[in-house]
Amino acid sequence: MDWQWSYLIEAALTEDIGTGDITTDTLIPGDADGRGYIVAKEPLVVAGMELVKGVFEFLDPDMECFIAAADGESVAAGEVVFDVRGSMRTILTGERTALNFLQRLSGIATYTRSCVAELEGTQTRLVDTRKTTPGLRILEKYAVQMGGASNHRMGLFDGVLIKDNHIAACGGIKQAVALARQQVHHLVKIEVEVTTLEETRTALDACADVIMLDNMDLEMIKHAVALINGRALVEVSGSVTKERLRELADAGADIISAGGLTHSARAVDLSMRIE
Amino acid sequence: MDWQWSYLIEAALTEDIGTGDITTDTLIPGDADGRGYIVAKEPLVVAGMELVKGVFEFLDPDMECFIAAADGESVAAGEVVFDVRGSMRTILTGERTALNFLQRLSGIATYTRSCVAELEGTQTRLVDTRKTTPGLRILEKYAVQMGGASNHRMGLFDGVLIKDNHIAACGGIKQAVALARQQVHHLVKIEVEVTTLEETRTALDACADVIMLDNMDLEMIKHAVALINGRALVEVSGSVTKERLRELADAGADIISAGGLTHSARAVDLSMRIE
Amino acid sequence: MDWQWSYLIEAALTEDIGTGDITTDTLIPGDADGRGYIVAKEPLVVAGMELVKGVFEFLDPDMECFIAAADGESVAAGEVVFDVRGSMRTILTGERTALNFLQRLSGIATYTRSCVAELEGTQTRLVDTRKTTPGLRILEKYAVQMGGASNHRMGLFDGVLIKDNHIAACGGIKQAVALARQQVHHLVKIEVEVTTLEETRTALDACADVIMLDNMDLEMIKHAVALINGRALVEVSGSVTKERLRELADAGADIISAGGLTHSARAVDLSMRIE
Amino acid sequence: MDWQWSYLIEAALTEDIGTGDITTDTLIPGDADGRGYIVAKEPLVVAGMELVKGVFEFLDPDMECFIAAADGESVAAGEVVFDVRGSMRTILTGERTALNFLQRLSGIATYTRSCVAELEGTQTRLVDTRKTTPGLRILEKYAVQMGGASNHRMGLFDGVLIKDNHIAACGGIKQAVALARQQVHHLVKIEVEVTTLEETRTALDACADVIMLDNMDLEMIKHAVALINGRALVEVSGSVTKERLRELADAGADIISAGGLTHSARAVDLSMRIE
Amino acid sequence: MDWQWSYLIEAALTEDIGTGDITTDTLIPGDADGRGYIVAKEPLVVAGMELVKGVFEFLDPDMECFIAAADGESVAAGEVVFDVRGSMRTILTGERTALNFLQRLSGIATYTRSCVAELEGTQTRLVDTRKTTPGLRILEKYAVQMGGASNHRMGLFDGVLIKDNHIAACGGIKQAVALARQQVHHLVKIEVEVTTLEETRTALDACADVIMLDNMDLEMIKHAVALINGRALVEVSGSVTKERLRELADAGADIISAGGLTHSARAVDLSMRIE
Amino acid sequence: MDWQWSYLIEAALTEDIGTGDITTDTLIPGDADGRGYIVAKEPLVVAGMELVKGVFEFLDPDMECFIAAADGESVAAGEVVFDVRGSMRTILTGERTALNFLQRLSGIATYTRSCVAELEGTQTRLVDTRKTTPGLRILEKYAVQMGGASNHRMGLFDGVLIKDNHIAACGGIKQAVALARQQVHHLVKIEVEVTTLEETRTALDACADVIMLDNMDLEMIKHAVALINGRALVEVSGSVTKERLRELADAGADIISAGGLTHSARAVDLSMRIE
Repeated sequence: MDWQWSYLIEAALTEDIGTGDITTDTLIPGDADGRGYIVAKEPLVVAGMELVKGVFEFLDPDMECFIAAADGESVAAGEVVFDVRGSMRTILTGERTALNFLQRLSGIATYTRSCVAELEGTQTRLVDTRKTTPGLRILEKYAVQMGGASNHRMGLFDGVLIKDNHIAACGGIKQAVALARQQVHHLVKIEVEVTTLEETRTALDACADVIMLDNMDLEMIKHAVALINGRALVEVSGSVTKERLRELADAGADIISAGGLTHSARAVDLSMRIE
Repeated sequence: MDWQWSYLIEAALTEDIGTGDITTDTLIPGDADGRGYIVAKEPLVVAGMELVKGVFEFLDPDMECFIAAADGESVAAGEVVFDVRGSMRTILTGERTALNFLQRLSGIATYTRSCVAELEGTQTRLVDTRKTTPGLRILEKYAVQMGGASNHRMGLFDGVLIKDNHIAACGGIKQAVALARQQVHHLVKIEVEVTTLEETRTALDACADVIMLDNMDLEMIKHAVALINGRALVEVSGSVTKERLRELADAGADIISAGGLTHSARAVDLSMRIE
Repeated sequence: MDWQWSYLIEAALTEDIGTGDITTDTLIPGDADGRGYIVAKEPLVVAGMELVKGVFEFLDPDMECFIAAADGESVAAGEVVFDVRGSMRTILTGERTALNFLQRLSGIATYTRSCVAELEGTQTRLVDTRKTTPGLRILEKYAVQMGGASNHRMGLFDGVLIKDNHIAACGGIKQAVALARQQVHHLVKIEVEVTTLEETRTALDACADVIMLDNMDLEMIKHAVALINGRALVEVSGSVTKERLRELADAGADIISAGGLTHSARAVDLSMRIE
Repeated sequence: MDWQWSYLIEAALTEDIGTGDITTDTLIPGDADGRGYIVAKEPLVVAGMELVKGVFEFLDPDMECFIAAADGESVAAGEVVFDVRGSMRTILTGERTALNFLQRLSGIATYTRSCVAELEGTQTRLVDTRKTTPGLRILEKYAVQMGGASNHRMGLFDGVLIKDNHIAACGGIKQAVALARQQVHHLVKIEVEVTTLEETRTALDACADVIMLDNMDLEMIKHAVALINGRALVEVSGSVTKERLRELADAGADIISAGGLTHSARAVDLSMRIE
Repeated sequence: MDWQWSYLIEAALTEDIGTGDITTDTLIPGDADGRGYIVAKEPLVVAGMELVKGVFEFLDPDMECFIAAADGESVAAGEVVFDVRGSMRTILTGERTALNFLQRLSGIATYTRSCVAELEGTQTRLVDTRKTTPGLRILEKYAVQMGGASNHRMGLFDGVLIKDNHIAACGGIKQAVALARQQVHHLVKIEVEVTTLEETRTALDACADVIMLDNMDLEMIKHAVALINGRALVEVSGSVTKERLRELADAGADIISAGGLTHSARAVDLSMRIE
Repeated sequence: MDWQWSYLIEAALTEDIGTGDITTDTLIPGDADGRGYIVAKEPLVVAGMELVKGVFEFLDPDMECFIAAADGESVAAGEVVFDVRGSMRTILTGERTALNFLQRLSGIATYTRSCVAELEGTQTRLVDTRKTTPGLRILEKYAVQMGGASNHRMGLFDGVLIKDNHIAACGGIKQAVALARQQVHHLVKIEVEVTTLEETRTALDACADVIMLDNMDLEMIKHAVALINGRALVEVSGSVTKERLRELADAGADIISAGGLTHSARAVDLSMRIE
């Protein structure tokens, strides 16, 4: 596991344990051993098992962890996804933090998987957005991958996305794209957000690498796709719901971006049984 | 605003900006000014305005921020909740992070408010749980307050909650409560989780301050409440949905805890308009 | 050992070693081995052995440490309490920091033990306060436990203690207690500090869980205890010296809090012999 | 104030406040103003006023702080040493942490001052040691200065002090001094710890800059001083008590080092009155 | 100035000041004011003025700083580039750290400018590499910009550069490019490093966005450029010296990358005069 | 390896890897093993092997590292200096950071060694200055040692160096030295920077431990050395080039300080071959 992930584990444990797990430290003998296993209580796609393992190992390197369902795997209700043995104190103290990571990330993976299913048989790529939980983006984008979709840029630093305010400040799409092309390093592609066919045409003339059709209706999307005609990648964005995915793909979107993959997936239900 | 919150702001901005907002830094002149205002796109309860303000001020202390809707306030779709003026670069770079905080916390406050409404006219207190997003608990519990509900303990350090594994290790509820009473500091109350009437009776005899009826059906809850008869606080927990809140209150719960307040509230829809 | 403790070890070593132990690094060969053992130079109660071990292991995970006297144990002058073998450089570089932790924490444990002895045979609980060394509270409160006394709240976050300024701001004890009861989570008890019998009565009527009799003379304490008559826990505080402990207990205090346990215990004398 | 000190303030406040001052935040209105002043309850030498000021300003930059007694100043019982006005919440929340710094550092300064008085009229310099509270050395050494004594080296990095184990590893005092002289940078002096006259002579021959007479009795110290005769600085160390200071100075010590200045000074009594 | 830069300033000051500037703190009165100005002692291109300003303001927010020569500006020997007024202590304590930043970054900018001059009149872009000083990459890449050249990718996270080991693991250039195209987000371009014409052809067929001709001689570069014929960007890399830049550009390189811009630029000579 | 070094490794890896090595993570299977070895491409003196090892072990504790050439060793072009086996991903991801440390530190060691050679047969000590790369001083001063020279003080905290501004503030060299002697701890020597014979004489009368002859010409240095005549150490500083080292030594300098050792050494050429 990445060392950067372990800082997120430490932050989560610090927040929960603070000055000590006063119940467990008082009631459970320091040398008592136990076993805990995490069970899916509904069908779900697993994501975050390394974090679960990391939580227990951070607390005590001697814990024995067994990952029964790998990230990306679909499991049925009732299936065991993780098994940990060792200090009973560590199991009880780490339980909630481990589950908090797992229920959230698996929630994203599960919802993403159901969206990806809508696009089966198409060439369209479903991607996330920057609408993620502050501080957890790297985990949530990983969960999107585990669900079978792809990522959009990680942040403001690894992709150029030119929006209306940028365009206004530069005096037009053409000027904006040219300026970006000249100043940004040569491995970064340039995407332009457009809302009309007129803007689409200008972005195309400006040689944008990717054109984002923002909040267009289906008819306009089809026109824009025809206009672009393969000369740029087409990303469709705005008010994307699971129900609309198929028709957007059929309209010719190369890429569909959906904030809901991360910001509105509900946590799935998992619990730990301890013995 | 608390200095501890500002570390969460910094972490969120670091994650999004990384080595630089390459689009904005390239296309927007450093001395350009602008104005941004955040608009609710659906009815919602606001939570997180200090974080929104903090994001822009962290990036540039000279930004002028105006909070139009205070945390805890209900706003209609279309209402402006926040207004910021100053460096256009700062507005564009901070926009997404500010919204990511706001949409999540307002989502929790909004959903919580709707749950609290179910309990109107009762004496029952609705509380959250430790099922929060790792690293953001302090913010999410704050959002629950803004929604009108109360908090359960903040973490493992500020309350004793004795569960079945703790009880097993001590040889019984009575022994567990006695041990906790003796060792934990005298301002901490002791809660015991029970699943049967028999256990409820034992917890009562052990002088537990609070008894948590976990996953009981309505009939059993009523029996337990009658048994307890005011000698301990009664918390009802497990499979709590918004629909069941009223009947649980009517059954005599002093406190109802619902993990869904934090783990399953969806983000509400807000956007920033920039000019 | 708790990971949070290891940050205190690192801070202490960083402060002492800085850019390097220039004497040891220059004069002792990197491959020289040695043995060090820590000897009590006066009778004392040990506290902090995990920190001592942690200091050497932090510097070099290959050190072999043997704790000869466990925390909480009384040892006579001349007894060996700790033994370390391995790199001579590590022994010499870590020596002072290890002893600095041990002499301070054992000093608190030793003094606390002598105070606890005064209360032998009574039901009264001796507790510490928040008058601790800034940054080391968690260690000092641990040392108090090792000395045989109990802790008061850990900080401002895990207990309500209402003092005169809080009362004044709320318009009276009754209002203050009611407000706290309503807003603070339900596992936190509420303590009120009083200085007169009149206030004691009001606090009792307000259903305070604990009443702190602050700086009362013995007579008034007895009256207050009679008045309270078991309906709240009684904490006695202010100008508590070891000599007064017994009479305060006899006067009916459930709890006696003494800042001196942490802020005025002198370091005990221990030294390391190296060969 | 030094930025490094402000990290100690932050650590102390974090430890005390944690997830919030639940009493004050609940009972005191956010806009209530107040005034607090710190009063000496016994005669003392002040040290740490910048930390006291720093605590309140860290919590709220708008607090108005007035330092009535500067560090190093002697004050009588009853004198006001500090005055703060502004947010009542900030005064109440910061009070204990501010006092914890002040009572400890002023305790060191006060005790140091009383020791320095013993040496009045002599040329002997009283210095501290590395026997300080882990993590607070920089503050405690500052308090020693405020008490009128001097510092020994700050840590293992800014002075060479050769002890018996170093000597043994090098094959003798002469070899050890020569090696250190050759390898350590040229602005660092070299001190050798000796316990016999024989070793004193060897250290002198080895051209040690400073010779530490460790745990010698008064007679031997006088002999050693006569032997050294001004060719090296003479430091006397070991079992130094306040009572022995004068005779050690009279015996010819240039420097007397006393661990007790930091490790055994008791906290002085100060309290804050709030209105 | 970016908050991330201020951590580099803090680290640099911490390293230099440590437990205190013992010369200045001892000899200069705390209230003495002074003026310092930095003078170029040779012709140079300035880079790092915000860091210089930041050093003094970090130590004391009341310093008055005046940047006389902006980053990117060429100055003659003897020209004043920076002026600071305020606390004499702060000027003396901050001087070296400020100059250490400035001499290194201006050194890079100066050397880069001289390289860029070789390419005048061509369309070829000169870029840096990842061969930077550990921990200072963001500053050094900024200095390259100030010298008039461009940046290559910032790190391993914001561009795909496929080298021989990657290719071997995937079974060929074609498979490697296809796999990267499918998995990496759609705003990242894909560059392939080749050393023969055969590989160049394969990379072209695989639709690499950029082809890096690594360590090819001039003849082979010309053949490769002819082969590529505008269908991909051509980067020339390996053994690039200032003397070869022109001929590489003339051979048709779109981009020339030179590690020497950052790893081998010597510091330029600047000094501070204080009065 | 020192734990403080490992923070520099972590910072360097964080800077380079950021949100992930997207090329390697995509193209290289997680279970692929490989071997990398670092080869000197020119004759050089090695420095930094523990950092190279540390980079790979930080990423993956299971890597097997073999240091073929120890720090301080001279190697010929073509020699292997380091060998690592294990995860191919780790080798590829860590390669550049490892080389960045090694090429810079070995560059300093190599250049230093060539300077030290100029002084062969003399008693003169060559030392570095504080003109180091911000944040890397501890490493660069270590590299100077590996090159065979010595260090000057580490920073402002471990040596007194009195310059003209300090002297002016104190009213003269005599007053400045006296004040420093009185206030700074007794293991720190006092050095005075002088530029004339007159000042040299005054510094000598003031009993400075070390006198720095700053920017004097050869004749004046000889006069100053004659004047000092062994009563203080003589350091020569200012415009020191490799060519002048011998004549400065012959003129009687005990110590020659040269900023160029750290600020102007070029990186040496090393590369990693991977198979």
